[in-house]
Amino acid sequence: MKDIITLNHGAGGRDTNELIREIFFDAFKNELLTADDAAILPSPNAKLAFTTDGFIVSPWKFSGGNIGKLSICGTVNDLAAMGAKPLYLSVAFVIEEGFLTADLKEIALAMKKTAEEAGVKIVVGDTKVAGKNQAGGVFITTSGIGEVSENVNLSGKFAKAGDKIIITGDIGRHGAAILLSRDNFSVSANILSDCAPLYKIADAALNASNNIHTIRDATRGGVGTVLYEIAEASKVGAKLYRENIPIQGEVKGLTAMLGLEPLYLACEGRFVIIVGENDANNVLNAVKSAPYGENAAIIGEITDEHSGKVVMKTEIGTETFLPAPGGELLPRIC
Amino acid sequence: MKDIITLNHGAGGRDTNELIREIFFDAFKNELLTADDAAILPSPNAKLAFTTDGFIVSPWKFSGGNIGKLSICGTVNDLAAMGAKPLYLSVAFVIEEGFLTADLKEIALAMKKTAEEAGVKIVVGDTKVAGKNQAGGVFITTSGIGEVSENVNLSGKFAKAGDKIIITGDIGRHGAAILLSRDNFSVSANILSDCAPLYKIADAALNASNNIHTIRDATRGGVGTVLYEIAEASKVGAKLYRENIPIQGEVKGLTAMLGLEPLYLACEGRFVIIVGENDANNVLNAVKSAPYGENAAIIGEITDEHSGKVVMKTEIGTETFLPAPGGELLPRIC
Repeated sequence: MKDIITLNHGAGGRDTNELIREIFFDAFKNELLTADDAAILPSPNAKLAFTTDGFIVSPWKFSGGNIGKLSICGTVNDLAAMGAKPLYLSVAFVIEEGFLTADLKEIALAMKKTAEEAGVKIVVGDTKVAGKNQAGGVFITTSGIGEVSENVNLSGKFAKAGDKIIITGDIGRHGAAILLSRDNFSVSANILSDCAPLYKIADAALNASNNIHTIRDATRGGVGTVLYEIAEASKVGAKLYRENIPIQGEVKGLTAMLGLEPLYLACEGRFVIIVGENDANNVLNAVKSAPYGENAAIIGEITDEHSGKVVMKTEIGTETFLPAPGGELLPRIC
Repeated sequence: MKDIITLNHGAGGRDTNELIREIFFDAFKNELLTADDAAILPSPNAKLAFTTDGFIVSPWKFSGGNIGKLSICGTVNDLAAMGAKPLYLSVAFVIEEGFLTADLKEIALAMKKTAEEAGVKIVVGDTKVAGKNQAGGVFITTSGIGEVSENVNLSGKFAKAGDKIIITGDIGRHGAAILLSRDNFSVSANILSDCAPLYKIADAALNASNNIHTIRDATRGGVGTVLYEIAEASKVGAKLYRENIPIQGEVKGLTAMLGLEPLYLACEGRFVIIVGENDANNVLNAVKSAPYGENAAIIGEITDEHSGKVVMKTEIGTETFLPAPGGELLPRIC
């Protein structure tokens, strides 16, 4: 097919079919993938989890991944965060006229690999082409269906005073990697995005304890935003121990230099897990044994005090409020 | 909240929450709509249908609807075309910086109304904001889950020689309405988009016959593209009777003036139904009694001859091939 994507590829005719067949069907093929209007799927005998996420990251490729990998991880992680095993994904592309066919193939290949790793099938898709300068290269929206085990019931509303806060790895690498991928940014550092599919971590944690109250993936707003959301939804406070929060040295250096709070840098492969105090070490050990969980740590606890707020205890014992998440940190980070 | 959407509304913090709460939650509220990472849903005891569709139409508002209405109709119609009752929808927005908050509210309101009419619940969403001139106003991707009755088995591959071809209403009004909505277009005519949710038509048709082989909604590629796809997938020909194809006078006039083939103008509220010959009149009558089906007509038949092609029989008895769908007719039509 042609080397670049043209408006014809989005018109729904012959060129659209060629694009879908040669790039997407070739990469995603499985027995459930459909060319009809909807995929027909076996229904799990369990509650369904259903989610959607749009990805508009610029640049589309970054150290440690690309928008294709990200679009699979984001949605399987949203399912896993509700304790659901990811089963089926849909993928919808908006491609800008002029995008290189070879780049689109690279994105599709990353999606295929990540979906395989996550144990999920891409079953249906859609492709549109937008005019020049109207879609920042490529936008991808994935939606996912998962099945929830009978005894699992997680929510951002369920955190309780006394619970421990676990982070499943070092924070902020995705945000830092995107920053460094931008042409107009003159710092260089060796930082790989943490972007990863996390179902196995959630599964290991849920097998290790019946007392997990909340799992959330820290995406564009970072760990700080997730904790503020949980504190507000559960009407509790969160207290963090600064020295326990795992941060890669180069991320720490970059954020210090730029005056950014690493708790507000995006992650794309990190869960925040809120678990009853007595089970915290069991869950920590289970997470550490799962893929992408080796740097997990208990970083704080849920409190009765300071409802709706996140408090940071520093190395020297002082306590300060983490500033509430506000406006824009990094545009188009995920 | 602010009168215009800013990049802050997409950063995942306070402004994002305000946008989601005040516009989307307010419009879509129902007992299953979630603020967690995924909605948790009762599983139907039936096969699932799952589909996704992206909407990038420009302008976002047109005669007879807007991109919000379109984004609900497109996805419920894809489910209904597989014989599935639409149950749950996800909605993902990419909004361009500078878009008016009031316009976004108008879009959300249209989505709410159309979802109610279609009997489907919006259960989960996502919102991203793209930089100025990077998303053509607003892009919406909806995904949907439906349940398929035990005895329903439809596919573009199942058309058989002798089957009749039904169109559920007059063709091409959506494409014509979009054309007329564009500022750079100096013709005026009173054409309303056909955009509509069609589950009740599919349900009525499937209740009237066990011999329906294919239902497809004619979207951006029009009825011509759908028929070429069915002819190719089922390895049959399709023969159309030109004089039987319902077309509103003003659409006919517009296409004649512009030299467009109305069979390739987009529809967003029309099914092509392929049904065994003996049941064709029953199905036609059932469709005519359903909402949006009053102008339905039998427009042709499936043939052994001319496999993979669509033949048009004119009023004076001559037969010609309908040109195969090719490149771009109208960019960003849906």
